[in-house]
Amino acid sequence: MPDNHSGVDGARVLADLNALRAIGAYKTGVHKPTFSEPHIRSLQWLAQRLPEAGLTAEIDGIGNVLGTSDKPGPKLLAGSHLESQNYAGWLDGPLGVVYALEAARVINSDRNAGGMIEVAAWCDEEGHFGSFLGSRSYVGGVTDAEIDAARDRSSGKSMRDALREAGLAGRARVACERGRHLGYLEAHIEQGERLEGSGLKIGVVTSIVGIWQYRIAFTGEQNHAGTTRMAVRRDAGLALARFCVDIDDRFPAHCGPRTVWTTGRITLDPGAPSIIPGAAEMLFQIRDDDAEVIARLEDLLRSMAADISARGRCTVAVERIRTGAPALMDASIQTAVEAASAAFAGGKSIRMPSGAGHDAQVLATVMPSGMLFVPSIGGISHHWTENTADADIVTGAEVFVDACRRLLKGHSVFERSGRRFA
Amino acid sequence: MPDNHSGVDGARVLADLNALRAIGAYKTGVHKPTFSEPHIRSLQWLAQRLPEAGLTAEIDGIGNVLGTSDKPGPKLLAGSHLESQNYAGWLDGPLGVVYALEAARVINSDRNAGGMIEVAAWCDEEGHFGSFLGSRSYVGGVTDAEIDAARDRSSGKSMRDALREAGLAGRARVACERGRHLGYLEAHIEQGERLEGSGLKIGVVTSIVGIWQYRIAFTGEQNHAGTTRMAVRRDAGLALARFCVDIDDRFPAHCGPRTVWTTGRITLDPGAPSIIPGAAEMLFQIRDDDAEVIARLEDLLRSMAADISARGRCTVAVERIRTGAPALMDASIQTAVEAASAAFAGGKSIRMPSGAGHDAQVLATVMPSGMLFVPSIGGISHHWTENTADADIVTGAEVFVDACRRLLKGHSVFERSGRRFA
Repeated sequence: MPDNHSGVDGARVLADLNALRAIGAYKTGVHKPTFSEPHIRSLQWLAQRLPEAGLTAEIDGIGNVLGTSDKPGPKLLAGSHLESQNYAGWLDGPLGVVYALEAARVINSDRNAGGMIEVAAWCDEEGHFGSFLGSRSYVGGVTDAEIDAARDRSSGKSMRDALREAGLAGRARVACERGRHLGYLEAHIEQGERLEGSGLKIGVVTSIVGIWQYRIAFTGEQNHAGTTRMAVRRDAGLALARFCVDIDDRFPAHCGPRTVWTTGRITLDPGAPSIIPGAAEMLFQIRDDDAEVIARLEDLLRSMAADISARGRCTVAVERIRTGAPALMDASIQTAVEAASAAFAGGKSIRMPSGAGHDAQVLATVMPSGMLFVPSIGGISHHWTENTADADIVTGAEVFVDACRRLLKGHSVFERSGRRFA
Repeated sequence: MPDNHSGVDGARVLADLNALRAIGAYKTGVHKPTFSEPHIRSLQWLAQRLPEAGLTAEIDGIGNVLGTSDKPGPKLLAGSHLESQNYAGWLDGPLGVVYALEAARVINSDRNAGGMIEVAAWCDEEGHFGSFLGSRSYVGGVTDAEIDAARDRSSGKSMRDALREAGLAGRARVACERGRHLGYLEAHIEQGERLEGSGLKIGVVTSIVGIWQYRIAFTGEQNHAGTTRMAVRRDAGLALARFCVDIDDRFPAHCGPRTVWTTGRITLDPGAPSIIPGAAEMLFQIRDDDAEVIARLEDLLRSMAADISARGRCTVAVERIRTGAPALMDASIQTAVEAASAAFAGGKSIRMPSGAGHDAQVLATVMPSGMLFVPSIGGISHHWTENTADADIVTGAEVFVDACRRLLKGHSVFERSGRRFA
């Protein structure tokens, strides 16, 4: 083992990833918010590499980088993203882009490959300006009005200003050409401990969970923290704290085996040490790949809120602000990734859902799509300490490229599963 | 009743209060943060009124307004403050200042009064820049270094810049002349429902509670909200919510009859919807007039924190950032206010502690001090809806002025209780 050679240049893959890490470096990670100067330089870096893979590079009007070929024959689309969360890790995004670039370099120069790899870096997967704006634009899901309204969640800068400063204003947005691709493959670090914990090297992604997000607002009565007796208080902050604890106590009895829920932000109004909060708000999120489980939990959430309002001290309003859509990964892509793992990762793979959202869930609405995961040390992600062992990065690249080969070779299989997208 | 006449001009008192409300008006209240333009105009308004009461006005180097007289004879100091909390009520502060002004106008022109009233408006009682900076400066408790370091808690502007912009930079700070005053009297709205709830008109303040403030910091592990299983999470925000609920469940069994506690601010770090908070912080406050009760509750707080840290998911650090000092109000002032209530409020008074902090607790460290409360509608304060019935405002003024007369007449009593300040 391996009985055949993937053609992957492991040193080149690691060098490319470190070149991207050097752009916008922060401690051992990076700070590359969407359309920041280091993000733009990373897009340009990719555009300059793509010709090495026989591809024509274009950065379109929403910041997607696309590497395409005019040559006839079957084509597979591969990619991920280049921007990062604020002060976050070096692999979340770039790993999948560099794997796609390596697959294109190896396969597009190989006459026997039976097809080509086209490469994409989708803009703003990390959601600084919206939700999957780059990939959703590619599949035709973003209107100009949505871009007009989009603002950076940290700085408040409008997306139009950011595009102008990046020199992308007025450029056309590239749209997906139906039927052009056999499918889409994306690699990513696991962002969890399952692979590392079991000594596995590859996660074969079966589905991507949907994310449901809620704004939960509590209304009580603002008053003086010294002169208002405990017995007559209507403390919105305390009501919120009790609600968080109730959720944690009651959700386990109603959730699915892989459901997760998170309160990511809490604000008390007015937030002064000597004032009883008259209002409080929490941002709450539920993730699952089973919409029925979510429906059950949302019912529970609303009934818990109704109970509190009925008790009269404070009122609670539950507003759903984001509705998730779980995505199933294509069966033949899962088979190809598993076969490639047998050939290049000693079969140390497992089928698993993705708890995080990825562009693959958007591409899955227009073509067969799949993902593979490599281990992430300690499961850390969205933090600058995020990391993966070099050996695991190289193994992942070999599995990725071999899976691409198998998909191009066996594309007849694939066109069947692809028919639903025709 | 009344068998004697207070000399108070109720219409003048209400007109003055409404004149101050018109400066920096917000809805039915005011927005007059310390050193804001409307606050400075309010100080100037007072300085222009003081000569009507036979007093020389001065605005000193920390923004205190002092109305003093060169005439010999017993003097009583009376006052309150003119700035407001942000977007707050019209009476919190101005009521006590206008009562003091009215007492000076009535008594300083009365040959038979046997003494004079001097007037003070203490700067920043509402704590925009610090804790009782104006009154503490007057009693000699504020160093220049403390002023150098002080910043506006909302805007971050330095106190030195604010003083410069207000035209007060370089002015001397007026210090208390020991033995000059028989004592200090301050009036305020109750900021609670006790008087209104019992149909009473005057609260005779027996003590002012101390405020103990804590920064409670929770440390867990920041991680991805989608890929981190519930079982392995170390969610600092959830630990904080449980702590708030534990406090509310356990404090009642250990607190005193009038203890109050409040969590006024909560922050989660990083505060993003898709990230499990790795750190969280709450500002927590306890108020009581019994330091032993506080000591017991602080022990409980620290042991609860130790329990959580011991369980290992998250660590908790409890830091006391403000240590309170309950203040006792002078016995002869309480007697005088009670007698004045019998004469001008039909005896509808009650002795009660103050749950809020006031400048009187600072003045009490250098001279006999006392306070009286008037009813506040619905007990609302630190909010623009704060209000008191006009009739109650006028009754309070009559009681205040009569109490001043009694204190000047009976000052021999008073010098005895005053001896401890010699």
